[in-house]
Amino acid sequence: MSDFRIRRATADDIPDIVAMLADDPLGARRESPDDPAPYRAAFETLDRDPKQRLVVAVRDGRTIGTLQLTLIPGLSRRGATRSIIEAVRIHADERGSGLGTRLIEWAVEESRREGCVLVQLTSDATRTDAHRFYERLGFEASHVGFKLPLV
Amino acid sequence: MSDFRIRRATADDIPDIVAMLADDPLGARRESPDDPAPYRAAFETLDRDPKQRLVVAVRDGRTIGTLQLTLIPGLSRRGATRSIIEAVRIHADERGSGLGTRLIEWAVEESRREGCVLVQLTSDATRTDAHRFYERLGFEASHVGFKLPLV
Repeated sequence: MSDFRIRRATADDIPDIVAMLADDPLGARRESPDDPAPYRAAFETLDRDPKQRLVVAVRDGRTIGTLQLTLIPGLSRRGATRSIIEAVRIHADERGSGLGTRLIEWAVEESRREGCVLVQLTSDATRTDAHRFYERLGFEASHVGFKLPLV
Repeated sequence: MSDFRIRRATADDIPDIVAMLADDPLGARRESPDDPAPYRAAFETLDRDPKQRLVVAVRDGRTIGTLQLTLIPGLSRRGATRSIIEAVRIHADERGSGLGTRLIEWAVEESRREGCVLVQLTSDATRTDAHRFYERLGFEASHVGFKLPLV
């Protein structure tokens, strides 16, 4: 696991990121890898937002993981900034390799650098393996995550 | 409930918002209403961030509720934007009045106007009244919310 690096995503990474988003029991129904236009538009919005960190893990020119970190300023907790981790995906060939741990550790360290007091994320209630993974990394399952689809 | 309005918060609203954040079983330990400096700095960051909507509900010049809505662009779900509701507070004198429902409905409508496909929030596992409230509004408790404190 020593020979990969985590870097900011570029527009050239979009197809690899979308392929990973789609290669997932929940993601397969939600993505359209053959239609790049909406992904390119969203990437441009992400890329110019200073509160966003969309990153990829790359080894030997292959994209093997991705994660999105959002910094959220707020008044609560004495004007604290928190961060939210979304869209964590590991390439199918790399699962179980420790890369997921390294990506989350990167997100936690980046959150510390930015002065966040808290890192948070939600995980679908059916992803029980993911829950154990986050608890091993020190996260506490202290909250209930509610979602309301608008479409 | 017809005589209040929901509007964007201004710097003058900070003391009232902080008082509501502190008047809460969990918030009382986390806030310092007598020290406005960190709240003012955080307000400035929020106020200039186009993805942030910090609002107050006001009636007869009294601030009776607050909510923070964050728009989060992303690649997943075909480049969808989602929104996150945080820091919902209702003044103690107004609880049970339906104002909470109106604030959440405002956040959902604002999310629709901004093209979001999903509204999400997390609620502390101990706030069971809040869970029933969100479920009545159509939210599904489909996720587990994980938090990692950094301080």
